[in-house]
Amino acid sequence: MTPPIPGARIDRASGVTAPAGFTAAGVAAGIKPSGAPDLALVVNNGQERPAAGVFTTNKVKAAPVLWSQQVLTMGELRAVVLNSGVANSCTGPHGFADAHHTAEEVARALTASGQETGAVEVAVCSTGSMGDLLPMPAVLAGIHGAVGQLGAGGDSATSAARAIMSTDTVAKQAALVAAEGWTVGGMAKGAGMLAPALATMLCVLTTDARATADQLDRALRHAVRYTFDRLDVDGATSTNDTVLLLASGASGIYPGDDELAAAVKAVCEDLAEQIMADAEGATKQVLITVSGAANESEALAGARVVARDTLVKTALFGSEPCWGQVLAAIGNAPIMLDPDRTSVFFNDLPGCRDGVAAPGVDTIDLAGARIHVRVELGIGSGKATIRTADLSHGYITANSARSS
Amino acid sequence: MTPPIPGARIDRASGVTAPAGFTAAGVAAGIKPSGAPDLALVVNNGQERPAAGVFTTNKVKAAPVLWSQQVLTMGELRAVVLNSGVANSCTGPHGFADAHHTAEEVARALTASGQETGAVEVAVCSTGSMGDLLPMPAVLAGIHGAVGQLGAGGDSATSAARAIMSTDTVAKQAALVAAEGWTVGGMAKGAGMLAPALATMLCVLTTDARATADQLDRALRHAVRYTFDRLDVDGATSTNDTVLLLASGASGIYPGDDELAAAVKAVCEDLAEQIMADAEGATKQVLITVSGAANESEALAGARVVARDTLVKTALFGSEPCWGQVLAAIGNAPIMLDPDRTSVFFNDLPGCRDGVAAPGVDTIDLAGARIHVRVELGIGSGKATIRTADLSHGYITANSARSS
Repeated sequence: MTPPIPGARIDRASGVTAPAGFTAAGVAAGIKPSGAPDLALVVNNGQERPAAGVFTTNKVKAAPVLWSQQVLTMGELRAVVLNSGVANSCTGPHGFADAHHTAEEVARALTASGQETGAVEVAVCSTGSMGDLLPMPAVLAGIHGAVGQLGAGGDSATSAARAIMSTDTVAKQAALVAAEGWTVGGMAKGAGMLAPALATMLCVLTTDARATADQLDRALRHAVRYTFDRLDVDGATSTNDTVLLLASGASGIYPGDDELAAAVKAVCEDLAEQIMADAEGATKQVLITVSGAANESEALAGARVVARDTLVKTALFGSEPCWGQVLAAIGNAPIMLDPDRTSVFFNDLPGCRDGVAAPGVDTIDLAGARIHVRVELGIGSGKATIRTADLSHGYITANSARSS
Repeated sequence: MTPPIPGARIDRASGVTAPAGFTAAGVAAGIKPSGAPDLALVVNNGQERPAAGVFTTNKVKAAPVLWSQQVLTMGELRAVVLNSGVANSCTGPHGFADAHHTAEEVARALTASGQETGAVEVAVCSTGSMGDLLPMPAVLAGIHGAVGQLGAGGDSATSAARAIMSTDTVAKQAALVAAEGWTVGGMAKGAGMLAPALATMLCVLTTDARATADQLDRALRHAVRYTFDRLDVDGATSTNDTVLLLASGASGIYPGDDELAAAVKAVCEDLAEQIMADAEGATKQVLITVSGAANESEALAGARVVARDTLVKTALFGSEPCWGQVLAAIGNAPIMLDPDRTSVFFNDLPGCRDGVAAPGVDTIDLAGARIHVRVELGIGSGKATIRTADLSHGYITANSARSS
């Protein structure tokens, strides 16, 4: 499914406007009290507008998710409007009406600027505090400001990426030019546990490839499955998580299914890596690999349990080669394993072999910013990796302050 | 199954020796470098010795658990030896031989003191650092010291309860005299997340009721299901968790199944409450109730997901009425719910009703040491409560220091 693309290279200096046919903008609409940029717009100016989306699996879905899911059933998107500061989550019918109104205003503003658009072609994404209603006058004015600033340059993409930051410390974008002359770009905001209740991952991907909505959907689901779905900072799935993929067709090139999936996955992989590195409160990037499992799905289930174990995450904050905690964690996973055949490695150094301490384990130095924990089950060939972070004082500080 | 016992009252000044027919001791054997008490012994001197046990569900089981599970298949116990300081977990065949050797030495010392005992009548429990072997000379000498100090008084019970503490700050015991003239006693050590890898719950219960091993087993499983199984400080299940129930028959009274189960459950309930209050790093005792679920099992599953949500637990440390985080957490639970019918209460004050903020939610004061979070799903009559704690800086400090 995912062949390497010869000569492909990720470029973090550009993002959603790297593919031909897209414009973007980011403005300070006044949704955030700080006055920081908080409203972004991405517009597909191509002759084609197929699109696909993947949304939170949380049963509690924010109003913009409910709106965008409806819109996506058409398989087309002209634009995506995103805001930070207020998540418009747990806001009931009023919140849904606000999301709808937001899309209508984008359609109206684009149409007024000569780009005929309907509200049902506009997806809405929000991130920020839960339970609060959007300050609609600011949002509506911000939309007109953003439409006026739409541009196809790298600066416009970067402005958009900045406007969706919540407690992210850096804007996150990436683009990849495939050798065949078509491009995939994207921007994202963090899934790291952020300030209270801002734990949302938003991502907009663009491409100038020609593709059907179904093809985009397959490529996106494949990419998300292996990237964002394996990014698990603290086990939380927000009410607002949204990943969208829009295609303009402007390159005129039809990539094959595998090529498209590989390119989209490569961009998602890079954005996931950026999100992990910027998880709030995290002092270490942690990769948890389970290998030698009965199959890939068991490996993934095991890696997820270890990645969510607070004892393991806290011990890693302390740079401890905590093989006992890792063994105890995997022992609670609903998978096949034999403790006496299970080994744990830290950055490839043995912490324990076949269930007992490895010689020299106490001298393993995990002071660095990146720790790779690998659990080898010795049963089969199933393997999977979860990206996570340590659990630190910074996390507690960030998430225990009253949001109001 | 659990009728109230008329006139029953919990007494925390006594413990495992409150029922007739039991002696106990606690000594400093030198297993802990600090010199604190670290070895306890509980002996059943009755004519009958039926016993039952419930053990960790972790696939990675410590050597003493493997030993005690074997011993319990006989349905009889003469004695339980417990140590703190070293968990004898992840120690392979050598560790199992040490557990076996420990039981043999107890049998030998009791026999030498005139109490004929076989090793297969001796259960072994350990708590402490993982991966380390027991210092057997200290353990063996400690066993003889403990046998020499066995006593039936309250002081002896308290000494035993002290000797099983790891980072518990207080000894935990309880006894209940049933109106009919028979008694249940018990001692426990904490399941709160303790110093690195010391996260074990041990509990020994005694009774002078006359009962079969099968009856004890039913009573114990019932009690554990509603008490210790609903105590979830950080989602971890240790490799050493053990709960044992021994009956001496010394009262001569045969309680009915329901009476016995109710009395055992009442003692377990009190010990669980003591463990919650002493969870390391915890600043608040937190009860998570889910009500109005489709059934009890769905309520329990929902409460467990909320109780394990790090965002919720961290926000509660900050005394925040975090109804949004609670809604987002329950939305990830694998249970039936409708966000628009879900309400959240903090100490009975509404945080949100039917999925949207309740008026005045920002003024809810959660500064106290006990917080009761209730999620009402409005679907059925299923209800369950999990005892947990907040997630604080103290937890991070306690669990990020290197154990060596």
